[in-house]
Amino acid sequence: MIMNTELDNIIAYFKKLQNEICNSLEHLDGSAKFNSDEWNREEGGGGLTKVILDGNVFEKGGVNFSHVYGKLPEVLKKEIAKENDDAYFHATGISIVIHPKNPFVPIIHMNVRYFKMLDKEGGITIDEWFGGGIDLSPAYPNEADAKHFHSTLNTVCDHFDSEYYPKFKKWSDDYFTITHRREMRGVGGIFFDHLRPANDNEREKLFSFLQSVGNCFIPLYTELVKRNNDKTFTPKNKEWQFIRRGRYAEFNLVYDRGTHFGLRTNGRIESILMSLPPHAEWKYDHHPEKNSEEEKTLVFFQAKNWL
Amino acid sequence: MIMNTELDNIIAYFKKLQNEICNSLEHLDGSAKFNSDEWNREEGGGGLTKVILDGNVFEKGGVNFSHVYGKLPEVLKKEIAKENDDAYFHATGISIVIHPKNPFVPIIHMNVRYFKMLDKEGGITIDEWFGGGIDLSPAYPNEADAKHFHSTLNTVCDHFDSEYYPKFKKWSDDYFTITHRREMRGVGGIFFDHLRPANDNEREKLFSFLQSVGNCFIPLYTELVKRNNDKTFTPKNKEWQFIRRGRYAEFNLVYDRGTHFGLRTNGRIESILMSLPPHAEWKYDHHPEKNSEEEKTLVFFQAKNWL
Repeated sequence: MIMNTELDNIIAYFKKLQNEICNSLEHLDGSAKFNSDEWNREEGGGGLTKVILDGNVFEKGGVNFSHVYGKLPEVLKKEIAKENDDAYFHATGISIVIHPKNPFVPIIHMNVRYFKMLDKEGGITIDEWFGGGIDLSPAYPNEADAKHFHSTLNTVCDHFDSEYYPKFKKWSDDYFTITHRREMRGVGGIFFDHLRPANDNEREKLFSFLQSVGNCFIPLYTELVKRNNDKTFTPKNKEWQFIRRGRYAEFNLVYDRGTHFGLRTNGRIESILMSLPPHAEWKYDHHPEKNSEEEKTLVFFQAKNWL
Repeated sequence: MIMNTELDNIIAYFKKLQNEICNSLEHLDGSAKFNSDEWNREEGGGGLTKVILDGNVFEKGGVNFSHVYGKLPEVLKKEIAKENDDAYFHATGISIVIHPKNPFVPIIHMNVRYFKMLDKEGGITIDEWFGGGIDLSPAYPNEADAKHFHSTLNTVCDHFDSEYYPKFKKWSDDYFTITHRREMRGVGGIFFDHLRPANDNEREKLFSFLQSVGNCFIPLYTELVKRNNDKTFTPKNKEWQFIRRGRYAEFNLVYDRGTHFGLRTNGRIESILMSLPPHAEWKYDHHPEKNSEEEKTLVFFQAKNWL
């Protein structure tokens, strides 16, 4: 049972997961190693940012752990704490974005997080929730990969609640849409937020669900890298990857809530923006050749049933 | 005197200016030509986007004219028209962003615009304003260029009102700040908005000021290109340009009001986002070498007195 130490347990899990994921990605890459940057947030807390660069497999990847706390920032007070000037918060989580070198290996993003608000420092909990998600942004259409990804997530979700996958899959489809382009960032995955436990039992169950999501990262991405990393690619494939990375940057800078939360709460900029691609291109009014694989990609990124 | 045809006059000036600027930039480039895309906005109006690509001097540049009108979009109604469901608007302007090839030639941005709100379609004008600005984003420090740029703008402004330059220069310094980086996008310039004429005379005067700003684009940028375009550059200089272009993209996607206005009012995406660089890079936690020109750039981008 999770008692007063629930926050410590969650933090301990995130730290362990960060290590495991970095180890497995280094193993997959075979060459590059993660560098670690520990950082402190002036107002309370901090994090450990781990970044891998210019590897065999990974061009740029970040696995961030953070635990920030303190008085609720002004900008958030109005939104979530109404009149309470003493409101105190803890936010902790892991955030991962991996930009692979090979254009046939998809970009992957995962985030698992826990947020808790107290009526004052050292006070009682007045709100708490779990959130997270995992989603895939390939540069090229690959039906088998998308199916494997979604059916794995479906299995993970079903173990807890049969309503989770359809609900969280739709949430992801809606969330990872580049509204102004009327296109999706990729093939989605699952996304969930504000999962509020009503009691200790529910908290335990939700934490357990969050762990299942976090734990599926390694086997899922290992499989996708192994399937695609040996494929040969041309400069044209690489150019298309740069264009899709431009879209990725657009989404993160214009819409992503995690990014905006970080920018507004004085988070560490380099840790927040490690999600941005190493290299991106914006061509004016670019249209892929008729019937090319590039053109098929745009039709492929639809909110469809992958099961 | 500007009478009922004031909107037509303003539009005619913008169209003429677009042509003149494109002609002079083609002449400067000596190789590439502008392509034109005419577009229509479903809800009313449209524009003419002119883009130059892969030239001798210009890697990517856009000179956009637009005149959009219709019922005020829902998202803006609350902000600027309060309770009026019938509010009708006209927005017209020219927007320019030029990304030169040579890292020693600065990126330039100019926008001149006019906005007018009626109580209903064909009704009476209930609000109107002029806005605009011109600013410079070099990748390298060049004091002579920054001084020439600012002193020219100072002269233009002083001709109308001695308070304009200091006020609009500060506005630009504040506006073109990448808040989360605590750095400026470049060396600024002037920025102004909501200049509301109280009568016909004032409208004439403000329009005349707007024309003076628009007309200084060609001589100013021609001079800056001529001063710097023949300088030799290395791959390292180009890389630094890519990094600074990443900052440019960050600013435009996270903060720029014109960009957000376009994205929220169903503008033509390719015209709005032509401002994004052809090529950008995000390196994790990049710090230029000690005492390098790159490091000096960061100190150079300060809100200082250039006169």
